[in-house]
Amino acid sequence: MSDHESPATRRTLRFGANYVPSRGWFHSWLDLDRDAVARDLDDLASLGMDHVRIFPVWPWIQPNRAQVRARAVADVRTVIHLGAERGLDVCVDLLQGHLSSFDFLPSWVLTWHQRSIFTDRDARDGLRWYVEQLVGALAPEPNVFAFTLGNEVNNLWPANATTIPQSTAWAQELLGAIRQHARADQRVVHSLFDDAFYAPDHPFSAADVTTLGDVSSVHSWVFNGTSRVDGPLGPATTSHAAYLARLAGACGSPDRPVWLQEVGAPLPDVPREAAPQFVMRTVQAVAAVPTLTGITWWSSHDIDRRLVDFPEREYDLGLFTVDHEATPAAHALRDAIEAARHTDHVRSPAISLPADIVADPSARYLVAPGSDFHRDWVALGERPDGRFAPPVITPATP
Amino acid sequence: MSDHESPATRRTLRFGANYVPSRGWFHSWLDLDRDAVARDLDDLASLGMDHVRIFPVWPWIQPNRAQVRARAVADVRTVIHLGAERGLDVCVDLLQGHLSSFDFLPSWVLTWHQRSIFTDRDARDGLRWYVEQLVGALAPEPNVFAFTLGNEVNNLWPANATTIPQSTAWAQELLGAIRQHARADQRVVHSLFDDAFYAPDHPFSAADVTTLGDVSSVHSWVFNGTSRVDGPLGPATTSHAAYLARLAGACGSPDRPVWLQEVGAPLPDVPREAAPQFVMRTVQAVAAVPTLTGITWWSSHDIDRRLVDFPEREYDLGLFTVDHEATPAAHALRDAIEAARHTDHVRSPAISLPADIVADPSARYLVAPGSDFHRDWVALGERPDGRFAPPVITPATP
Repeated sequence: MSDHESPATRRTLRFGANYVPSRGWFHSWLDLDRDAVARDLDDLASLGMDHVRIFPVWPWIQPNRAQVRARAVADVRTVIHLGAERGLDVCVDLLQGHLSSFDFLPSWVLTWHQRSIFTDRDARDGLRWYVEQLVGALAPEPNVFAFTLGNEVNNLWPANATTIPQSTAWAQELLGAIRQHARADQRVVHSLFDDAFYAPDHPFSAADVTTLGDVSSVHSWVFNGTSRVDGPLGPATTSHAAYLARLAGACGSPDRPVWLQEVGAPLPDVPREAAPQFVMRTVQAVAAVPTLTGITWWSSHDIDRRLVDFPEREYDLGLFTVDHEATPAAHALRDAIEAARHTDHVRSPAISLPADIVADPSARYLVAPGSDFHRDWVALGERPDGRFAPPVITPATP
Repeated sequence: MSDHESPATRRTLRFGANYVPSRGWFHSWLDLDRDAVARDLDDLASLGMDHVRIFPVWPWIQPNRAQVRARAVADVRTVIHLGAERGLDVCVDLLQGHLSSFDFLPSWVLTWHQRSIFTDRDARDGLRWYVEQLVGALAPEPNVFAFTLGNEVNNLWPANATTIPQSTAWAQELLGAIRQHARADQRVVHSLFDDAFYAPDHPFSAADVTTLGDVSSVHSWVFNGTSRVDGPLGPATTSHAAYLARLAGACGSPDRPVWLQEVGAPLPDVPREAAPQFVMRTVQAVAAVPTLTGITWWSSHDIDRRLVDFPEREYDLGLFTVDHEATPAAHALRDAIEAARHTDHVRSPAISLPADIVADPSARYLVAPGSDFHRDWVALGERPDGRFAPPVITPATP
C-alpha cells in the first residue's frame, strides 16, 4: 500500500465538526431554537466545512420503549434542513447515550427496570425499533450522508453489562437495521472510543470498529495517555490520530475507509498556545493515511461555563466560543485540511503488530499508548523534514 | 380523642385525584397539549373533585444541575391555570423521581456522575436550587394549595444510598426550602411509601412522615401484603388506609392532619367487580379518622396500553379510561366522599403500639400488614353494623 499513496489530483477529504450547540449544550434539544442553531451552523459553514455530526438525545425521543416522539424527530429534521441551507451534510448519531461524560438513559433501563441494553432481548427490541423509526424518518433527507449507531456506545458499559461476543452481536443487529432503512449512498457507522484497541479487558473488540458498518470510525483523544509520552507537540501526541487510523487498517481490511470522526485539542494536555501547531501536525500526520476519508473536529462550540459538572477538559474544546468567535485552532484546522487536500502522501514505512489484538484481546496492552510497539511506531514515522510518515501497520506474523 | 369525633356540621374533606394524563402518560410533559390536559381535568371536575396532584418530571426540567428550563416551568404553570379554570386546586410534586415503577433521574447523578441525591453535597445543592426555583415560580398561583417534595422519594433508594439520619436531614433541608418560598397557606408535604412504617431495614423513618412538613401524607396500597390477609373486601384490606392514618397519629402528634394522598384499587388484588365496594368501605373507614383532611385517588386516568413495561397493576387504576369514560369505582368514590362529609364519626376504641417503631425502626415488622398487631387492630375496629371504627393507636407503653 505504501507504494501507492500519491494522488495526482486534489484529494477528497471531508471536513466537519461534531456539533455541540453553543446555547444550552445538548439540552437545547428540549427547547429547539432554530435561530440559535442557524447561527451556530453559520459559524461552521464560514470555516468551509462540508458536514456536521449531530447528537439527538435518545431517552427524550423514546421515553417509553414503545413511543418515539414525532415532534422530537421533527426537531432533528429541522436541524438537518438548517444544515442543508448552509451546504452542510449531516451525520446523525442515534443512541445518545454518552456525551462528554454524561449518560442519557431512559427510565425503562434504569433502577427498577435495570437491564443491559446490550443483552436484554426486550431492551434490544426497543433499540431496534428506535433505530428503525429514526432512520426511516430521516434517510430521505438528501444531505444526510451517514448514520452512526451512537456516540461511543462502549461508554454505556459498565452501566450495561456485556461481553465481546454480546457487544458484537448487538452492534451487528442494530447496524443491520440502519442499513435496511438507510439509502445505499448513506454510510452506516459504528462508533467506539479507543479502549476497543487498547484495554485488555474491554468488552468491545477492535474488530467491531474495523469490520462492522461501512467505515472504520476512530476517535483520537490524547488524554488517553498519549500526551504523557511526549507532551502536546511531540510526535507521539500529534500522530495519535494517524496511529489509530493505521491500527484500524491492521485489524480489518487495509483498504477499508477510515473516518477520523472525533479529534480535539483538550486542555490541559494541549495548552491553548500549542493548539494551532497540534492541529496542523495532527492533520498532516493523519491525512498521510490514504484510506482517510474525512476529519470531524470535536467540537464546534465551547460549553457554556454556566453549565456545571462537566470534566474541566470538556469546556474549551470548541472551534468557536459560545459567543461565536473562532479560535486560532479553527483557522489552523481550516488551513491544514486545505493543505492536506493538495499534498501528496508521504511514503510510509511498515511495521507488524506485536500480537493479533482481535484474536487475543488480552494482548491489547501491547499496542496501548506508551507501549514499546507504540513508541517504535512513532520513531519509525518521524522524518527529517518534520513531516510525519505514519507507518503502515501490518497484521502480526504468526 | 375518640370522645370528640362527632362534627355537628358538614365536614371539610378534600376530594381529588393524582393526575395521570390519559394521553402519553407523564411523557406528555415533553409535548404539553393544553387541549388534552383540559379534557382530562374536565373529567375530574365532573366528578365534583376540588383538587389534583400533579407530577412534573424532574430531569426534563433540570437537565443540568445549574439549569432549570423556563419553558418547562411555564408548562407546569399552564396545567395549574387549566386546573384553576375548572375550580381545581393543585398540589405540585417536585422531585419525580419515581412514578409507577419508573425512576426519572438526571444524567448528572447517573453512571459516570453517580452520587447519592440524599448524601452528596453538590447533588443536594442542585436539588435545593431546583426546589427553590419551582416553588418560587409557582407559589404565587392562587390555586396551588400544596407542594410535595416528591412522589415517594424513598423509592429512589437503593439506587441512591442513604441512612435514616441522612434521609431525615435531606428532607428537612429541602422541605425547609419549600417552606421558605411557599405561601403561608400552602401545605408543605413529604411523601413516602409505607415501607417507612413497615420495613425493619428501610432507611426512611415513619417519623419523617409524621413530623416533617405540615401534614402526614399516607399512601395506601393493598398490594403491600394487606390484600393477602383477607381478600379484596375483607376488613383488613378495606381498612388499610385508615390503619396507616392511625399509625401516623401514633408516630407523631395525634392531632396532626393526615392526608390520604394516594389510595387506589389495584388489580388483581381488587377485582374490577369488587372495586366499588372496596372504594366505599375504604372511604368510610379512613374518613372515620378525624384528623383526615382529604382523599386523593390514584389515579385520574388509566395508562394507555400502547405504552409498555409498566407493572400490570398500573394500567387500570384510573377513575377514567383513556377514552374518558368514568368507571363504576369513580361514581362510588364520589358518593362515598359525599357521604363521609355528612356522617358523624364513629366512636373508635384504642390500642397501643407493640413497640416504638420510631425509636427502634427494626421493630417495624411488628406492625406490618399481617402482623399480630395489625390483625388485632382490624378485629378491634369491626362493628356489628358493618361500619369500621378504626382504633386509635397510642404510643407503645414503655
